[in-house]
This record gives sequence, structure tokens and C-alpha cells, in this order.
Amino acid sequence: MDQVTLITRADMADVALGGAFLGTGGGGDPYIGRLMAEQAIDANGPVPVLDVDALDDDALIVPVAMMGAPTVMLEKLPRGDEAVAALRSLEAVMGRKAEAIFCIEAGGLNSTIPIAVAATVGLPVIDGDGMGRAFPELQMVSLTMFDVHACPMAMSDEKGNALVLNTVDNLSTEKFARVITVEMGGAAMIALYPMTGAQAKRAILRGSLSLITNIGRLIRSEQDSNRNPADRLAKELSGVRLFEGRVTDVDRRTEGGFARGQAKIEGLEAYQGRTLTLKFQNEFLMAETEDGTPLAMTPDLICLLDLETGQPITTEQMAYGYRVIVFGLPCDPKWRTDHGLSLVGPGYFGYERDYQPIETLTQKT
Amino acid sequence: MDQVTLITRADMADVALGGAFLGTGGGGDPYIGRLMAEQAIDANGPVPVLDVDALDDDALIVPVAMMGAPTVMLEKLPRGDEAVAALRSLEAVMGRKAEAIFCIEAGGLNSTIPIAVAATVGLPVIDGDGMGRAFPELQMVSLTMFDVHACPMAMSDEKGNALVLNTVDNLSTEKFARVITVEMGGAAMIALYPMTGAQAKRAILRGSLSLITNIGRLIRSEQDSNRNPADRLAKELSGVRLFEGRVTDVDRRTEGGFARGQAKIEGLEAYQGRTLTLKFQNEFLMAETEDGTPLAMTPDLICLLDLETGQPITTEQMAYGYRVIVFGLPCDPKWRTDHGLSLVGPGYFGYERDYQPIETLTQKT
Repeated sequence: MDQVTLITRADMADVALGGAFLGTGGGGDPYIGRLMAEQAIDANGPVPVLDVDALDDDALIVPVAMMGAPTVMLEKLPRGDEAVAALRSLEAVMGRKAEAIFCIEAGGLNSTIPIAVAATVGLPVIDGDGMGRAFPELQMVSLTMFDVHACPMAMSDEKGNALVLNTVDNLSTEKFARVITVEMGGAAMIALYPMTGAQAKRAILRGSLSLITNIGRLIRSEQDSNRNPADRLAKELSGVRLFEGRVTDVDRRTEGGFARGQAKIEGLEAYQGRTLTLKFQNEFLMAETEDGTPLAMTPDLICLLDLETGQPITTEQMAYGYRVIVFGLPCDPKWRTDHGLSLVGPGYFGYERDYQPIETLTQKT
Repeated sequence: MDQVTLITRADMADVALGGAFLGTGGGGDPYIGRLMAEQAIDANGPVPVLDVDALDDDALIVPVAMMGAPTVMLEKLPRGDEAVAALRSLEAVMGRKAEAIFCIEAGGLNSTIPIAVAATVGLPVIDGDGMGRAFPELQMVSLTMFDVHACPMAMSDEKGNALVLNTVDNLSTEKFARVITVEMGGAAMIALYPMTGAQAKRAILRGSLSLITNIGRLIRSEQDSNRNPADRLAKELSGVRLFEGRVTDVDRRTEGGFARGQAKIEGLEAYQGRTLTLKFQNEFLMAETEDGTPLAMTPDLICLLDLETGQPITTEQMAYGYRVIVFGLPCDPKWRTDHGLSLVGPGYFGYERDYQPIETLTQKT
């Protein structure tokens, strides 16, 4: 008899928590996506999780996600059926039905929305994602490195507007989708990167849903024992505790469909007298000390945790006075290739630095 | 035996000239569209012109056009196959082939591009249009008054990007299409308002292609006789010569995908000592004297002609020193209804004036 892994209502708290952690500050508020997924599971039953190898090579796999600035998503709740509308619209263009749903990123809302959609339409989700974390732009997926095209891509909003894009490359998809997202009020539901099982087997980052669930479970069990989860996270994920301090300044603006800005953190305890600057575009992208020395940089993961509870903090929640742990994690090795760094390295985001792995940077300091 | 009207290569000069006149300063540079149509007719033969009543009620009719700021179109020439790409993309969505091509507006480029497309794909064009002139936004068509939906709408650019829109109403279509046009570099080829023969029979403004050809022929024959065509145009089109003078100031900017601004004209001859201000958004929308008295306003037509040759002058050609005739023409009666004025009256464009017909305004002065 086959073993089937199912995502149940009870799992959603862990998925949302782990998704918020790997979201590195972005990916949208996990709470909204968690509610949507719980409702959909209540109505339609738990969601099977599939290993990508279990799929036929010609099966159609469709990622669904929310696109836009997390700051907007906090105030513009999804109506609920826009994501399914985007999926149906893409299926209509493809002339066939999806056989599995996929998470484009392992970030809060975008690791839970696909589960809500999968439950609603009665499909399994793949145990994997396209980023191994969250990134702010839609061409920033491992799929781009393996020549999977983002198009046809479907977009829909809560008013009922629906658009289908067919662009010449994935960077163009991002550019068109971004202005459409802004016109949709700053947030849109999307279905894109339709791919075959064969493509997925080559191109996706595997195991993300299991990883997210495990991270969420770990954080919660440490919280339940009144321990800060940072130490166990560091140990089990090869992560590094980069800094501890109090947020003293947040400069954040919503521009071009992104939440952009930086935050200053004044050191506490062992970090007293030092200052860390976190730069972000939806996600945290660069952590620098007061003299400009980098401690971690994109594509490595920079996560912000509450100093007391270990709860992940998103870029849009971050505010003056928060006491935080800054936590670093090495990214998937695919991102450290030349192609990977051209897509998501510091240079792409306008930082004039060569990429250095977090392991190198933290050995120096 | 049936009589068939054909648009030949020799007709294109008249179509372009008449289209430039009814374009009221907008609709794009007629010269580019004329060249494209002439090439296509050379390659594929003349284009049959159909009366809409000759079509079956369930025939599919598709308007094709260029969207964007005329100022951009001057510098970003079409590659040639983008308009056909937009048509094919729309046909794919509709799951059927178009049986006739339609001009969305009776303006320079947009009265000639559809003929180029019709010749290329071997279809007839309908003798009619959706505006009876040119207007700057795509919901500003008689079709909107008769509940014909602009969507599905296809857009394509010279790079090969293609998008399909399905929006909740025609004003939303305009908003999404406009930001996409800007992202396409300021100009896009579009196919939209797919409609049945039955819808077209109710909703279109009839006879525009014949009218355009006749206007072009009239202007050219007067030019050939070294006469300014303004007098004969006034007589045959119930038009009014509003002003004559020299352009002394043009304030023009490209913003939000439009060419916006105003021009000042200092009176000559009988108009010596007076000043006229022309306000435009792609098309001329308002003509006012120095004390703010309107002489003509949208949706009535305001056309600019060269004082010597009678050649129509577009908003993007207009420059300091041009000696011009300002010519006014009553619009189609459909535009003077409440619904029509809500779409294209002075209030929509932000002018705080109630619409007054050109006949009333010019009787006063």
C-alpha cells in the first residue's frame, strides 16, 4: 500500500509559521493564506502532498501565487476565488487541466495560498518550490535557470478583471505583470510557469513543503517550552545568529509595486554598542554593520525573529521598538551559480558588491 | 451582379488625408499607416469595403488599431506584423476567425492600419467606425453605448510580447491597456471589441470610410487647383472656419501614455489682434478665445489645417510658426446624448464646462 502525506487543518499553523520564516520578511502575511487554506480544507478535506517524481512526465503542474507589495496585501484582502480564477484562466489557455499545484516561493502567503487553491479544486501540491525562500520578482525562480517560461501567465483581481500574458522572456513577464499589479490596486492573484512533470523534475527546488512544516513545528515546540527557537534553528538548518537588538528606525515606501526601504537595529546584550542595517525590497536582501561590513547578502536568507518568542517578523510588520534576532541561512546551491547570481545576486538589486556566501562572511567576523 | 467597392493603392492617399482630417489632430501619423496599407495591397490585392448590412448577424468583426501617444509613434515604427499578431491572438481566444476588419476610430493611423491588416489577411473592411473621428481613450466608442465589450482584447508589441485582457468594463480595459502600452514603450498594436454582425449593425457609426475617402479626395483636388480646401469642406461637411492665425506657443508633454498640452494661436487677417487656445489630449478637445469663450468643444471636431495648403496638422506636428486654419465640425448625434457626453464630453476630460454644440457657440460669436 502507498503512503500518502496529507496537509490537514492542524498542519496549517506550522506551514504558515515555517513559511513566514523562509519568507525572509516577504511573501505576504502568512495569516491570511493560512485562514484561506483552513477554510478550504474544512470544506473539501486535506490536501495530498506529492513528490515530484510521482508525477507523469507529461502531467501539467501550475504554480499559483499572490503578486504585489505585502504592505498592500495587509489592507486588500483577497475575496477568495481570485486565485482559482487565475488557475482556471490559465487552464483555459493551455486547453487542459492542471494535475498538481505548485508553490512558486517558500514565503508566508505564497506557501499557503497554493494549498488553499489545491484544497478548493481537489488537486495535490508538489513538495517543492521555485525559490527555497521568497524573492520579490517573478523571474527569480530556479525555473528560469532551466528555461521554463513564466508564460502563459494569468492574472486576476477581486473585481473580476483577468489578463493573460505571453511575453518574450521571464524578465518581461515580471515587468508587464508588475504594472498590471499596480493597476489592480497593488496586489493580484496569478497562475504562471505552467510546466510538465519532466520540467519540474529538473527545475524545482525539492522538499520545501516538508522543510517549511518542520521549521514551523520546531519554532512552535520551542515556543511551547518557552525557549527561543533560534538556537535549534541554527543547529538544524546550518544557520547563523547574526545580530540581536532593537529596531530604532524603519524607512519604508511602496513604490513600483514593491515595499522598499531599510531598517536600523541597535545592538543589545552581546551586540551592545553596535548597529546593523537591513535593506529590503519586500524581502530582506542585505545585512550590514555600522562600518558597512556585510554579514549576509542575497541570495542567502536573512530572517528576522522576535527576540522573546522567536516569531518571524515580516518587513511590513517591522516597527520601532521591536526587539529582534537577525538570523542568516545559506541559500540553495543553485542560486550560487553564475546564472543564479545574475538573477538574484546583490548586483541585480543595485548593491555594488560581489556576492560572498554567508559562511565566508561570518567566519571573518 | 453585385457591385463591390475596393480600396486600391491609389485610394490610400485619400484615405490617409481624410483620416488625418477627421483625426482632429490625433490617431497617429497617417503616413506610416498609408505606407503599410500600400505595401499590403501591392502584395495581396485591393481590399473590399463592406456595408455592415451585408454581413450575417453572427459574423465575427474585429477592430484593429494602434494604441499610444502619437509623439511616440513617430519614433517607434511598427515592425509590420504586430497588428496581425494581435488579430490572430484575439481569434485564438475567440476560437474562430474574423470575417471582417473594422476601424475603431476615423483617425490617421487608425483608419489606415486596419486596411493594411485586412489586405494582409485577405478580409474586407466595414464602411464605418466607432467614433466618427478620433478620441484618445478606447472606451470612447459608440460600441460602449450599445453594451459591446472591449474584451477580450489582444495587445502586441514589436518585440513579440502579447497580452490578452478580460476586464469588468470598458473603462477598466482602457486603464489596464494604457499601463501595458506604456510598458510596451508607449505604443502597442491592439485587437479588441470583437462583435457580431448583429451588434455592429446597431452600434457602429456608418459610412466613415466613404466619408474619409471623399474628404481626402476633396482636399487633394482643391490643393491640385491651388485652392485652400477649407471653404469647400465647410460647405460640404456643415463645418465652420473658427480661426486663422500663427502658432506662437506649444506646451506639449507625453504623460501616462498620452500627448497632452495646449497651443496658442495669434490671429492673422480678419482675426488680427485675437488669440485662440487649443487644448489637446492626443486630439484637439477645446478651442477658446482670449477671454475664455469656447468656440468648439469635444465631442465636436476641432481640426487644424495648414493656412496655405489645407493639409491637416496633427497635435505632434504642430510647432511654433505654423500658419493655420482652425476648423470645426459637428460630431455624430450619438455623442450628443447623455450617455455619449458622459463618455467624451468636456467634463470627462476635466474641463469645467457644460457641453454646447458648435452650432450654438458659433451663432453667438
